[in-house]
Amino acid sequence: QSNVVIYGIADAGIARSDTSTTPAVWRLQSGQQSGSRIGFRGTEDLGGGLSAIFVLENGFSIDDGSFAQSGATATTPAGTRLFGRQAYVGLKSGNGTLRVGRLETPMHAAFLVVDPFATNLAGNIENVFNPYAIRMDNTINLSHSIGAFSGELAYGFGEQAGSISANRQIGANFVYSAGPLAAMATYHQAKPSAGATGAGSAADDSRTLLLGAVYDFKVAKLHLAFAENRSDDALGAADGKSRDMMIGTTVKVGASGTVLASWIRKDDRFGAGTGDRDQLAIGYSHSLSARTNLYTSFARTDRKPATQADSTLFNAGIRHRF
Amino acid sequence: QSNVVIYGIADAGIARSDTSTTPAVWRLQSGQQSGSRIGFRGTEDLGGGLSAIFVLENGFSIDDGSFAQSGATATTPAGTRLFGRQAYVGLKSGNGTLRVGRLETPMHAAFLVVDPFATNLAGNIENVFNPYAIRMDNTINLSHSIGAFSGELAYGFGEQAGSISANRQIGANFVYSAGPLAAMATYHQAKPSAGATGAGSAADDSRTLLLGAVYDFKVAKLHLAFAENRSDDALGAADGKSRDMMIGTTVKVGASGTVLASWIRKDDRFGAGTGDRDQLAIGYSHSLSARTNLYTSFARTDRKPATQADSTLFNAGIRHRF
Amino acid sequence: QSNVVIYGIADAGIARSDTSTTPAVWRLQSGQQSGSRIGFRGTEDLGGGLSAIFVLENGFSIDDGSFAQSGATATTPAGTRLFGRQAYVGLKSGNGTLRVGRLETPMHAAFLVVDPFATNLAGNIENVFNPYAIRMDNTINLSHSIGAFSGELAYGFGEQAGSISANRQIGANFVYSAGPLAAMATYHQAKPSAGATGAGSAADDSRTLLLGAVYDFKVAKLHLAFAENRSDDALGAADGKSRDMMIGTTVKVGASGTVLASWIRKDDRFGAGTGDRDQLAIGYSHSLSARTNLYTSFARTDRKPATQADSTLFNAGIRHRF
Repeated sequence: QSNVVIYGIADAGIARSDTSTTPAVWRLQSGQQSGSRIGFRGTEDLGGGLSAIFVLENGFSIDDGSFAQSGATATTPAGTRLFGRQAYVGLKSGNGTLRVGRLETPMHAAFLVVDPFATNLAGNIENVFNPYAIRMDNTINLSHSIGAFSGELAYGFGEQAGSISANRQIGANFVYSAGPLAAMATYHQAKPSAGATGAGSAADDSRTLLLGAVYDFKVAKLHLAFAENRSDDALGAADGKSRDMMIGTTVKVGASGTVLASWIRKDDRFGAGTGDRDQLAIGYSHSLSARTNLYTSFARTDRKPATQADSTLFNAGIRHRF
Repeated sequence: QSNVVIYGIADAGIARSDTSTTPAVWRLQSGQQSGSRIGFRGTEDLGGGLSAIFVLENGFSIDDGSFAQSGATATTPAGTRLFGRQAYVGLKSGNGTLRVGRLETPMHAAFLVVDPFATNLAGNIENVFNPYAIRMDNTINLSHSIGAFSGELAYGFGEQAGSISANRQIGANFVYSAGPLAAMATYHQAKPSAGATGAGSAADDSRTLLLGAVYDFKVAKLHLAFAENRSDDALGAADGKSRDMMIGTTVKVGASGTVLASWIRKDDRFGAGTGDRDQLAIGYSHSLSARTNLYTSFARTDRKPATQADSTLFNAGIRHRF
Repeated sequence: QSNVVIYGIADAGIARSDTSTTPAVWRLQSGQQSGSRIGFRGTEDLGGGLSAIFVLENGFSIDDGSFAQSGATATTPAGTRLFGRQAYVGLKSGNGTLRVGRLETPMHAAFLVVDPFATNLAGNIENVFNPYAIRMDNTINLSHSIGAFSGELAYGFGEQAGSISANRQIGANFVYSAGPLAAMATYHQAKPSAGATGAGSAADDSRTLLLGAVYDFKVAKLHLAFAENRSDDALGAADGKSRDMMIGTTVKVGASGTVLASWIRKDDRFGAGTGDRDQLAIGYSHSLSARTNLYTSFARTDRKPATQADSTLFNAGIRHRF
């Protein structure tokens, strides 16, 4: 069928995880290097440089066939989402791209570039950096690139009666990419639902500013990221403040190998700072073809207050793109 | 894969809705002109004019990736249906078509033709005309056409022990289509479940008879529909009676525009008649290609008793077929 | 899209079932001869005789569009599985095949061969023989064949903290296939979850050993199967013992017909043996093409203690492969 392209990733392997207070568990896991997914996409040339585009992308766990982004909650434990990764329709032209639906946030797009682990494996930057902003529902996304500059602007409707701002999300990124350097700034804000009042995180107005850069020194790439996070309760008082920083590297080894490594620190600057943590991770990916590779990775996460559990994660597996 | 055709619709846009008692809400919505869907279908030539056919059609909400006809209930809030729009297998020959599975009803097939809005946009006829009969589970559907005449007969098993009629559905349509005229009569009956007793709508035996016609006057099409609805409780006493009527038009504007309009009245003839309402709607659809178009529509619904909320709906968006 | 093949089965028909204590029910049913399914699979040649493979296979009920292997439980009545039949990725070479994910068990693979009804229709061997082992989550499966011999070894992770054996499953089959004979031995063990203690089936350690053979006498095939089942409670005491035996036949009738028949007995050897039963079944399948056929079957099941309900099942329908 010429109008639709089917694509996806099947990724499975084994993992061993433990913490300083719980025994080790061995698992068969899905999507360790890239979330297992199957998608349907298409493009129609409308003439005059204009195209219609769509993407419908389901995420699943290959270890048991279940939905990976089902939107499960306490009241709907099975979740309700079929296309949990992305679902959008849009128009594309030389003056920019408009997409509407459920989309990855501009901040997640930046994480994918700046993280040596591309937001997966044991070193996933979103384990530590604020992960509240991977995808947005009810979103209008505008993107454009001019020469070395590109940017993305996203608005997610709050869809609440009587308030245009309640439950709203806003995101943006701005990327400069030329020669060996890619530098980016990105911002995300999620407003609380209408009716949330008083102190406490349930009413959070959360904002994150991220700065990142990747520089290719030929022998290796250097990855740097810094984020400032803040959340306010319904009274406007801060109830969360933290700074995240990452330094990482990507090193090509021979024709088909890549070594990945990163060190990430979260500096919790609110109250007793019990959210402090350090994550040190190393990984290796080995291509069997342009579409198939083997991988392994290891991470150790230390949480500062001695009463909190430290943890380790080892995994290894195979990723096949189709 | 030659045996399967993938097809679908991605439809998204914005909507503003309000009522006379609640503030306006802006939303990003899916399937405003046509329900967003992805389907898989195929045909196999069995020789002698006989073919095997199948359709598996999922409906989804592109604004959050969720299922659109999940069959959600209070006890299964996530729903259980993957192919919520249609799922059937069948045989097709010169003497008729047999389809078995989950199917759209013969009455819905008639609504699709007689409604200028094709059961969508702000003017959707099924907002007012009885919508209890869009799709049927456990159905055997026979259809055939001879010259200008075509018809469809559907039987949905009640699947209840000890009673062949409990929970059963029956539907039929009969269409005459020649030159500028399409005229149709269609009927649907849904029987209550076994064990439903006493007065009250939970035990309803519901019947609707619909008459409709579309006449093409070249400058515009005229659309007319009339329905008589009745439901009886388990004792055979009427507990619902109403008459629905619609007058609508479709007007081509230039090479790629179509204006749609309809006025619909429900005359609630049971008890105090608190179900009375008038819906006035206008819409415009503009083709960008044979597969992609933009649309906008507006409707106002007035409910007669002054204590009931009136409502308005405005929407606009893009629909892409693939 | 050259990397993905879409395939599946659409199977629907009518069924009449009753028991000696309940009235008959007529139904429209899905998947009576083969579970209705849609799958996506692919192979990539990695060179040197090595290939990457994947299968993602959803099962659905065509009569209402619902999921067929959703994994529904009391707390998640809608279930959580999209690819409920199989979901795996793997590597294939001349030295064997490795698959990881959710897979059919080695025992089910043997049932598919030894059962004249191929685990479906009214005579389904898994109605009587232990059906606890059709599919396994979190599984590593190794298979290989050398000449007339082939075998499969499966390990399903229990994924429970502090115990490598809790909740674990192990399965294996060994098949000899040459000329008119196919003979097989297969074993499956499912361990109880961690924390299950005391007497009673909730803590079962269940094992089944199956021996089977099919011999082609040209005029007909003879199918024989024997299984020994045992389950132990957490204290190691038997809380279930049974023996299952089947004799069946497959007879080609003309160019496009096949008659299937089997007699199955379960000999419950634990306690009062209230699980005893005899199932006698006959079926007929008629090809309309290589991909499409009609079928009908009938079974009668007698349970020995007179207080238990006997049952009959008749069905007929159409199966279309795509």
